[in-house]
Amino acid sequence: MDMKLREVCKGANVMSSSPNAIVAQSGGPTAVINSSACGVIQEALKSGKIGTVIGATNGILGVLGEDLFDISAEKPEAIEALKRTPAAAIGSCRYKLKSLEESKADFERILDVFKAHDIRYFFYAGGNDSMDTADKVNKLAADAGYELVCMGIPKTVDNDLAFTDHCPGYPSVAKYVAMCAAEAGRDTEALYTADTCTILEVMGRNAGWIAAATGLAHRCEEDAPHLVYMPEAAFSFAKFVDEVREVLKRLGRVFIVAGEGLKNSKGQYITADTGAFAKDSFGHVQLGGVADMLKVVIEKEVKIKARCNRLGTNQRSAMHFASLTDVNEAYMCGQMAVRNALEGVNGKMVTLVREKGAKYKCTTGLAELRDVANGEKKLPVEFINERGNHITDAMRDYVRPLVQGEAPITIGEDGLPVFMRFERKPLEKKLPNYL
Amino acid sequence: MDMKLREVCKGANVMSSSPNAIVAQSGGPTAVINSSACGVIQEALKSGKIGTVIGATNGILGVLGEDLFDISAEKPEAIEALKRTPAAAIGSCRYKLKSLEESKADFERILDVFKAHDIRYFFYAGGNDSMDTADKVNKLAADAGYELVCMGIPKTVDNDLAFTDHCPGYPSVAKYVAMCAAEAGRDTEALYTADTCTILEVMGRNAGWIAAATGLAHRCEEDAPHLVYMPEAAFSFAKFVDEVREVLKRLGRVFIVAGEGLKNSKGQYITADTGAFAKDSFGHVQLGGVADMLKVVIEKEVKIKARCNRLGTNQRSAMHFASLTDVNEAYMCGQMAVRNALEGVNGKMVTLVREKGAKYKCTTGLAELRDVANGEKKLPVEFINERGNHITDAMRDYVRPLVQGEAPITIGEDGLPVFMRFERKPLEKKLPNYL
Repeated sequence: MDMKLREVCKGANVMSSSPNAIVAQSGGPTAVINSSACGVIQEALKSGKIGTVIGATNGILGVLGEDLFDISAEKPEAIEALKRTPAAAIGSCRYKLKSLEESKADFERILDVFKAHDIRYFFYAGGNDSMDTADKVNKLAADAGYELVCMGIPKTVDNDLAFTDHCPGYPSVAKYVAMCAAEAGRDTEALYTADTCTILEVMGRNAGWIAAATGLAHRCEEDAPHLVYMPEAAFSFAKFVDEVREVLKRLGRVFIVAGEGLKNSKGQYITADTGAFAKDSFGHVQLGGVADMLKVVIEKEVKIKARCNRLGTNQRSAMHFASLTDVNEAYMCGQMAVRNALEGVNGKMVTLVREKGAKYKCTTGLAELRDVANGEKKLPVEFINERGNHITDAMRDYVRPLVQGEAPITIGEDGLPVFMRFERKPLEKKLPNYL
Repeated sequence: MDMKLREVCKGANVMSSSPNAIVAQSGGPTAVINSSACGVIQEALKSGKIGTVIGATNGILGVLGEDLFDISAEKPEAIEALKRTPAAAIGSCRYKLKSLEESKADFERILDVFKAHDIRYFFYAGGNDSMDTADKVNKLAADAGYELVCMGIPKTVDNDLAFTDHCPGYPSVAKYVAMCAAEAGRDTEALYTADTCTILEVMGRNAGWIAAATGLAHRCEEDAPHLVYMPEAAFSFAKFVDEVREVLKRLGRVFIVAGEGLKNSKGQYITADTGAFAKDSFGHVQLGGVADMLKVVIEKEVKIKARCNRLGTNQRSAMHFASLTDVNEAYMCGQMAVRNALEGVNGKMVTLVREKGAKYKCTTGLAELRDVANGEKKLPVEFINERGNHITDAMRDYVRPLVQGEAPITIGEDGLPVFMRFERKPLEKKLPNYL
């Protein structure tokens, strides 16, 4: 979109007094949640049917606090640069609204802010909780007779939203962690005589989608990861030690991927487990994570040196090796949320639909906000191998198309990526303070 | 180099019975130690003065075990792909030889293996210890009247080798960790209302070069990292807590980089310190690292949530965002080691020399192996700010030219990088087993 087009849109706004739209981001950031925002913003500006596109600083907190800024006034090149900027440029939060009864004041405040700024469209990118919030705001507005369209845009690196083939954000983290396994795997391979074992800990408190993605890097027996542990497969320390020994015997080294939320057969997080192998050593694992715990077990039981790589937030913000497919699909989700909203759709989340056929093709669909809010999608059993320590070809076939292409980034004169920041021209507050 | 040229070189070998060369890699891998190997191999093959180029599997262990393979027989495209492959494709080790007296049998074995395979050139890429080994092997050969040329090639992500402006491997890790600070910094900025503090732990047990490099990402006050702690500046918990509070007051969030080897004013690693703030919490930090320890302090004293990113071996193997400058210079070091050796130079390590002038230009020089072995280069005091919690412009000027350019990588059909592996045609063993 060029400057001229934006000016036309803004002009249209002033003349027609079109209703305004809020776009907001929620929960853990991803490499592409800004691409979704870009899709919303550019489509809304282009439509000529929306007045001011408003950013709610830090998600629903920004709405509650009436902390809003005029995205329509931002430079078009800044808006375009959202596609090359990780995290959440509008600002995110983890503020959780409860039921309409319990959080009544909050919900009413949201509606008051919407009314005060003539906001008739609410585009909310997030996970289950955000879809729940959008759904409740929508119902409250309907009950109050306030015309409002609430549309959800899927976002989560965890890939655990139901009703969508996958979630924007996941393909990029998948590509990044698989690449990290490939690279660090070569390190372990090179120095196995000293650093014999490496444990890569990845995100996924309840679902193993991210851990499973690393399995793609295992192209042949030599390639890391040799063992992949996912929360969906009950974890046993005795079995783990056996499997580590087995790989060591075969290759002289072992590269392990562990999802942060590994659970035992009782469904308890193993980081909370003090039984089994090493009662003394396990009392204080709160300082590390699951990888630190496995390292202790390996060093104690298998008597080899182990190293831990814990990527932390670097995995969900890895714009520099994001999936181009993900960037494009995230944009499409934002775009389609606006198109659907303008066509009269309401109370839905845009979904990604994988078309049937040998060649990967992804289109969008719609799901009820409420259904998404209540759903959860774990790694299906057919994606995990029988021994529960690696993935199957079905998982490879699922994830391979998602990690295709490398998203372009801008590199500055200092050799580092350049990201955008909004100028944030604040909207004048019209209501008393709330937060 | 094309196939034809290689065949000519091999032909020359057979006809002239030129002496052979060993190339070996040692210590912790880097993104570009293979580029140095590539420089050695391609220059040696091109020279027509070296017979077989031999790889010693896993560094000096491969020499001791007579575990050698014929690199001249490898495909030229595999040799070329070394420039796009991280870690150590020939294989590395941490086997440390002591004095000539203490490790007499080892040193004599090395010479025996060299004699058995008519090896007259020894190209060894590594850090201080490797230069020490090369130096001693060289002296032993001279004493025994065996003609041998030993050349060192600098390699260490830690950047702590003396007599060289910087070490191949460092620019790539510098570029990667600075980018990681930039990206994860945006994550903290986006979600500061929940994840208020992030601590990025980077390598550098004794020197703060890697931690310092992240300072480059701090282009303005908003940009991470806000605090950078390096082992060269004595660490105080009380001062740390004050500084965290100060940044929080200003920005509402804080992004911290910690070198893994932070030390207190007595020069002791703080991870070994049980005094100061939180005696109860510190007894078991062996499970995590310095970042986990700082997280505990922050959560306890400042009462905000903190997250840890520990990149581990992913930082030293990050080929996918390696510095092109580094790849080229590492190659040049390998190339110049061969050129110098063929011109009669012996017992030296190739150094990188930063030419005077506004525009960065790097050439090579030479330093005595023995001098390098005994030297160590810490971060100079003028690269650390007065408060000991960030870098100065002098450090920025030092590191900026090093991180220029992105090394090309090959992406496979599965969306992940493709790395090479040697075919490893073994050399027939001529000596009794040793290891």
